[in-house]
Amino acid sequence: MSEERYQQGIAQLEEMGGTPVLAMLEQLQDTTSDLTRFTVEFAYGDILSRPGLDLRTRQIATVAALTALGTAPVQLRAHIDMALSVGCTRDEIKEIIIQMALYAGFPAALNGMAAAQEVFRVKDKKVA
Amino acid sequence: MSEERYQQGIAQLEEMGGTPVLAMLEQLQDTTSDLTRFTVEFAYGDILSRPGLDLRTRQIATVAALTALGTAPVQLRAHIDMALSVGCTRDEIKEIIIQMALYAGFPAALNGMAAAQEVFRVKDKKVA
Amino acid sequence: MSEERYQQGIAQLEEMGGTPVLAMLEQLQDTTSDLTRFTVEFAYGDILSRPGLDLRTRQIATVAALTALGTAPVQLRAHIDMALSVGCTRDEIKEIIIQMALYAGFPAALNGMAAAQEVFRVKDKKVA
Amino acid sequence: MSEERYQQGIAQLEEMGGTPVLAMLEQLQDTTSDLTRFTVEFAYGDILSRPGLDLRTRQIATVAALTALGTAPVQLRAHIDMALSVGCTRDEIKEIIIQMALYAGFPAALNGMAAAQEVFRVKDKKVA
Amino acid sequence: MSEERYQQGIAQLEEMGGTPVLAMLEQLQDTTSDLTRFTVEFAYGDILSRPGLDLRTRQIATVAALTALGTAPVQLRAHIDMALSVGCTRDEIKEIIIQMALYAGFPAALNGMAAAQEVFRVKDKKVA
Amino acid sequence: MSEERYQQGIAQLEEMGGTPVLAMLEQLQDTTSDLTRFTVEFAYGDILSRPGLDLRTRQIATVAALTALGTAPVQLRAHIDMALSVGCTRDEIKEIIIQMALYAGFPAALNGMAAAQEVFRVKDKKVA
Repeated sequence: MSEERYQQGIAQLEEMGGTPVLAMLEQLQDTTSDLTRFTVEFAYGDILSRPGLDLRTRQIATVAALTALGTAPVQLRAHIDMALSVGCTRDEIKEIIIQMALYAGFPAALNGMAAAQEVFRVKDKKVA
Repeated sequence: MSEERYQQGIAQLEEMGGTPVLAMLEQLQDTTSDLTRFTVEFAYGDILSRPGLDLRTRQIATVAALTALGTAPVQLRAHIDMALSVGCTRDEIKEIIIQMALYAGFPAALNGMAAAQEVFRVKDKKVA
Repeated sequence: MSEERYQQGIAQLEEMGGTPVLAMLEQLQDTTSDLTRFTVEFAYGDILSRPGLDLRTRQIATVAALTALGTAPVQLRAHIDMALSVGCTRDEIKEIIIQMALYAGFPAALNGMAAAQEVFRVKDKKVA
Repeated sequence: MSEERYQQGIAQLEEMGGTPVLAMLEQLQDTTSDLTRFTVEFAYGDILSRPGLDLRTRQIATVAALTALGTAPVQLRAHIDMALSVGCTRDEIKEIIIQMALYAGFPAALNGMAAAQEVFRVKDKKVA
Repeated sequence: MSEERYQQGIAQLEEMGGTPVLAMLEQLQDTTSDLTRFTVEFAYGDILSRPGLDLRTRQIATVAALTALGTAPVQLRAHIDMALSVGCTRDEIKEIIIQMALYAGFPAALNGMAAAQEVFRVKDKKVA
Repeated sequence: MSEERYQQGIAQLEEMGGTPVLAMLEQLQDTTSDLTRFTVEFAYGDILSRPGLDLRTRQIATVAALTALGTAPVQLRAHIDMALSVGCTRDEIKEIIIQMALYAGFPAALNGMAAAQEVFRVKDKKVA
């Protein structure tokens, strides 16, 4: 493993508002430091820090894919949170989730919307 | 959006015993009135109210598909409930879920059966 | 393995118009007689021959599930063919596939419809 | 069905460079004018024409979701083509597909890239 | 159904440390004795008791597949538990789950690792 | 990107009999050298070269997962080929594919077996 790529990944996570991802990785830390390290190094250090797309577009793509797949609700909520952090509005996130009804069906879209609702509520509570 | 299609959808939902769907849509209401509206208008108003198939057959198809996909447990329970409302027996629902072991594997069928069990229990409690 | 269950499976396949399934199984025969045997014995001998549901309903459930999953086009075409054999009309099959747009998205429904179209065309050629 | 929504869908398809979608729908026409009509009316007329997101972002979300799902190669190619039509660059499309390796695995990303490659080649041939 | 195959299935379950599977099946017992019987007879009696592969390899394959599918968390935990029972080490299980990041993406691997973590914790509590 | 990790990945691919993977990556080369590089560096250089599991077990896990997912037939064939290269027998590969009928259904297993059959045939032709 590479310290440089790990540090780049951590920096990228911070730029992307990655607190929910770090919390999830921390919970796994005692079981496997290796998978968490690969997530930071490869996902954030190698891929998501590439210059070819702005972070807003990257998060919209991830929210779309995780809503469509429907198998990773924890990660979907984390990425909805991060989408807000990099400048997506709530309406844009809801719009992309509605669009997924076309490509993955209404249950996938409804579950994606429930995930967004939960993230928005937590945010609203913190502010209040 | 169209008031007429929306009203047709609401009527269709009522005919199909759609209380569990309405409950789910109501919970999302403050986040997104649009997705709930599209669900009523398009799913119930446009598609499920078409005359080509009786409601019993439609619900069996939906229970089969949601059991096989395995990604929408809330919706699966709602549609098992509605299958009972339009005249499917518990044994028919269990039979269709067993059949899904062939097309999506035993875990999908076992999780589908657990969903049916939960719906049946809630119904039995209400009666008792 | 059990000769009795195997014979029951073959009889069930014949009752269900299972020529397309038998053709698929025959192609695999030299690689693995065991998986084909399990398919006949368990799928057709044990499950699909159970009395709890009529064959028409069973085939509609299978066509719904395979359309929604979208990962088994060969089997989807075989079961559309068998659905016709046990008395489903073309319009009923098309209706169930349209309904799957709601639960698995438009691409799944469009691909299901393309599968149905292919089965119908082959049937029409044979008649002509 | 509604003539107005259908016309809005056709207009939206044209704005989105929807020739590959129209070709796919036309092939299904003799089997089912209804599913093709619903696709135009609901997908393009109701959802994709909503003002909440620009078309470039919408296409990126769809390419991401279809790459991740991996079950609809024909539709993936159509939407890559349409992504180019609404202003996405080839590099942006490739970048979003690479990103999907993180959320759906390398085979999904590699198959998405093969789909992009095929679309690019057809475009290059037409120009040449 | 066959008493002999059922008894063979129960024996196989015991050899595989199948307590978590038996617990899951028992919970479904009042709803459906048939699906639990098919699971024992066919899955354990017919397939998993075949001599062609050692049980350690079989459990690794199942943990890999359920991690990749991501739709059956209860069954994944049961099979991680059984993998330990037939001699897989915790490190081997973690290694196979990390590998699934390549074929099904990081969320699938992270959720698989969280499942493993939960199984390990329960085991550690019992020992303490 | 890292030359050292890339070279380690290439070495790992050679040890695993990775000719079919290299062929697939080469076809994508003109579209995207980056995804092919990440596949070599991360999948083969970082993950599959880890010492925690022997290559035979790793390939069995991958064949199981890709059979169950059912969305990557090209990659499934490549990994069946590589499973043979690292010492799995044809019977072991067939056994793992049969087992997947339990976790992902019969169509997934039948399609996996058809993939194995194709790989075996190509091998037999080369020998003849």
